[in-house]
Amino acid sequence: MSDIESIPSTDQAFLEDFHEVATIGATDAGGVDRQAATPEDAQSRKWFTGWARTRGWEVRVDGIGNQYACTEFVPNAPYVLVGSHLDSQPLGGRFDGAYGVIAALHAAQRVRQAVAEGARKPAYNLAVVNWFNEEGGRFAPSIMGSSVYAGLFDREEMLRARDLDGISVAEALTAIGQLGTDAPPEAAGYAEIHIEQGRILEREARDIGVVESSWYTQKLDIDVLGEQSHTGATAMADRHDALVAAAKVVLRVHAVTESFEEEAMVSSVGQHVVEPNSPIVVPRRVHMIADLRSSSPEIVREARAILLREIEEIAREHDITIDVSDFDIREKRYFPTDGVELAEKAAANEGLSSRRIETMAGHDSVAMNTVVPSVMLFVPSVDGVSHCEREFTTDEDMVRGVAVLTSVTGELVSGELPPEAPWAGKS
Amino acid sequence: MSDIESIPSTDQAFLEDFHEVATIGATDAGGVDRQAATPEDAQSRKWFTGWARTRGWEVRVDGIGNQYACTEFVPNAPYVLVGSHLDSQPLGGRFDGAYGVIAALHAAQRVRQAVAEGARKPAYNLAVVNWFNEEGGRFAPSIMGSSVYAGLFDREEMLRARDLDGISVAEALTAIGQLGTDAPPEAAGYAEIHIEQGRILEREARDIGVVESSWYTQKLDIDVLGEQSHTGATAMADRHDALVAAAKVVLRVHAVTESFEEEAMVSSVGQHVVEPNSPIVVPRRVHMIADLRSSSPEIVREARAILLREIEEIAREHDITIDVSDFDIREKRYFPTDGVELAEKAAANEGLSSRRIETMAGHDSVAMNTVVPSVMLFVPSVDGVSHCEREFTTDEDMVRGVAVLTSVTGELVSGELPPEAPWAGKS
Repeated sequence: MSDIESIPSTDQAFLEDFHEVATIGATDAGGVDRQAATPEDAQSRKWFTGWARTRGWEVRVDGIGNQYACTEFVPNAPYVLVGSHLDSQPLGGRFDGAYGVIAALHAAQRVRQAVAEGARKPAYNLAVVNWFNEEGGRFAPSIMGSSVYAGLFDREEMLRARDLDGISVAEALTAIGQLGTDAPPEAAGYAEIHIEQGRILEREARDIGVVESSWYTQKLDIDVLGEQSHTGATAMADRHDALVAAAKVVLRVHAVTESFEEEAMVSSVGQHVVEPNSPIVVPRRVHMIADLRSSSPEIVREARAILLREIEEIAREHDITIDVSDFDIREKRYFPTDGVELAEKAAANEGLSSRRIETMAGHDSVAMNTVVPSVMLFVPSVDGVSHCEREFTTDEDMVRGVAVLTSVTGELVSGELPPEAPWAGKS
Repeated sequence: MSDIESIPSTDQAFLEDFHEVATIGATDAGGVDRQAATPEDAQSRKWFTGWARTRGWEVRVDGIGNQYACTEFVPNAPYVLVGSHLDSQPLGGRFDGAYGVIAALHAAQRVRQAVAEGARKPAYNLAVVNWFNEEGGRFAPSIMGSSVYAGLFDREEMLRARDLDGISVAEALTAIGQLGTDAPPEAAGYAEIHIEQGRILEREARDIGVVESSWYTQKLDIDVLGEQSHTGATAMADRHDALVAAAKVVLRVHAVTESFEEEAMVSSVGQHVVEPNSPIVVPRRVHMIADLRSSSPEIVREARAILLREIEEIAREHDITIDVSDFDIREKRYFPTDGVELAEKAAANEGLSSRRIETMAGHDSVAMNTVVPSVMLFVPSVDGVSHCEREFTTDEDMVRGVAVLTSVTGELVSGELPPEAPWAGKS
């Protein structure tokens, strides 16, 4: 902010905390590298625990590494959960996830203050959550901790997921002392704030995005199986080069979006591992993961069908095997209309502009929205860039978001969002 | 062999040793995995040392991990070296390299016997060599130990080369106790036998290939630098996907061979590393190594020029940076004609058919041939396959090769190949 003196002290405290956490796992180019259950992730978790305990919140860690800072207003009542995740992509940005957790801590602290002062009458208790492994960069699938909480993923199965070095989630969480045994708080509702990771708010100069639905997404596990041979001694005609066939698959996954209206879908390969990966060996195997997303489930299904046909042709052309399997299918899902309206009012009350928006990215709120009424807010992202070190959101925009999140959290704690919303089953 | 009883006991001993070494680092599919300076490589080196010491050879290890089994016939005279390498590609074949070392041990032992019996008069001493890291799968460049011996590579620089886990050659050799301090024997000549790794001998039903020249080869280090972003949230038009651009480069490297006559060159990408390699991140970087080879230096140079132009176009089209640099250029090189004729006579004396042949693959002999007159022999490879687990050569063909190698080694020890051969400088 241009004039730090003019900022209220509560906002200054938020900004100080945000910028302090951004130093954990900081990279030279202004990003962070805090992949799930690494020493850097452990450090941010320690910061979370310290912050909460200092202020009298009870910290719990559940059996998939989710951290909760809990406060009880109404004995035996369920909790409003508010939060996001402190883990990052490899060489990720410092806003993705961390902004939501630190905003949640400050919003929750303000709501607790309001309850203590009698300014807000609580119907539910309140907890801030740092979900485990939202990013899925080290351990697939992503959105792991909140999906286990929501019963979408099996905890035991997730604990067995392994990174590329063969280390399991259970081993990695144990190594950082974060495989907990605490019971997670029972949820009555959920709120989350996040950077947009797109350009819509910036382009339209809106302060707040209120998420009304999440894109339909699915991944394809693609295993290209050729034959290993000598890069020097094997005649071109005798080769079954897995990398050449894989390169064609990568290009088809990229190009399939052109079969649809511009921006109607996104599609790409992010993980792509070559074996044996020796300079002098024609590759025998490429294992890759493609990520297909659209607001329209029909478009993703049609793109998938096109790709399966094209991949079959590539396999035939190269006389090699390409195995493809679906995984991590996430239905298009609507957030409750009552929650969207509640968030719009909260923004208006703060004198801020807002617009309804879809989320292309997955978020913990998407998992939580399958079990309790959830509210998801966005703040603008400069240039729309994300999952990279130059990801950026201004202090002003962050502070505005904290104000709206505080208001939304307060309303949820007061029971203003009905637990049985009309959205149920609208996935 | 169909009837083991009919095989001379010396050949039986060779076959027993060969099949014993094939159990070190053996894979389920009949191959071996003995990458340079791994525990499996250490085990095969221990076998080499044990075999040689038991039979009274003096074992030395030099400062780049080359192992020598030496015997002195003529005090202060230089040595005829004969050997190959015991390291393998990841999931490599059991013949590539290992056949040459075990054949050399047996050939050398037979020559020593002949000298002891007065049947052969020596002009030089004799050493069997197991060159370090011929394969280059773990540490680039390949043909490392013999190239350091020949003064083509700098020892200190090679000791600093690192594998994909960041471990240096010096660290890896130290870890297996094979970073030696012995002076290597001074060479007067070199002989090596190897499987063909091609189909020519099999197709023409010849027993022995006598290598007259090695292909011109070079590698390209290609670094594709895009921008990391979110696979879900980033609009297709806003991406600078390094993997998509890299896929186009892979296909161009593959297709460039079509600009020339069939089989006139080979070209491929063997190593290809994606960063950050997370399923949910558009890749920021792909680092790859392309391998171009031809009998004709002009063809490789022309292919390189075509690729540089095409890669520039790809970089422009994707608005990303692609850095390309040349490395590991190996000139087309002729083996001495005297040596070729000597080997042809040796084959004929054994009643075997032979033909002159080019080597597409690099070998330790190619490095040694730059400093001393060298002879390189091939035996047939079934289906021509190599650098893979189903690489195969029959016992009969291996035994025939040992006989010819024994004869060639004996002739070299007797000084039948002039040290200043007319081939010098014909590279």
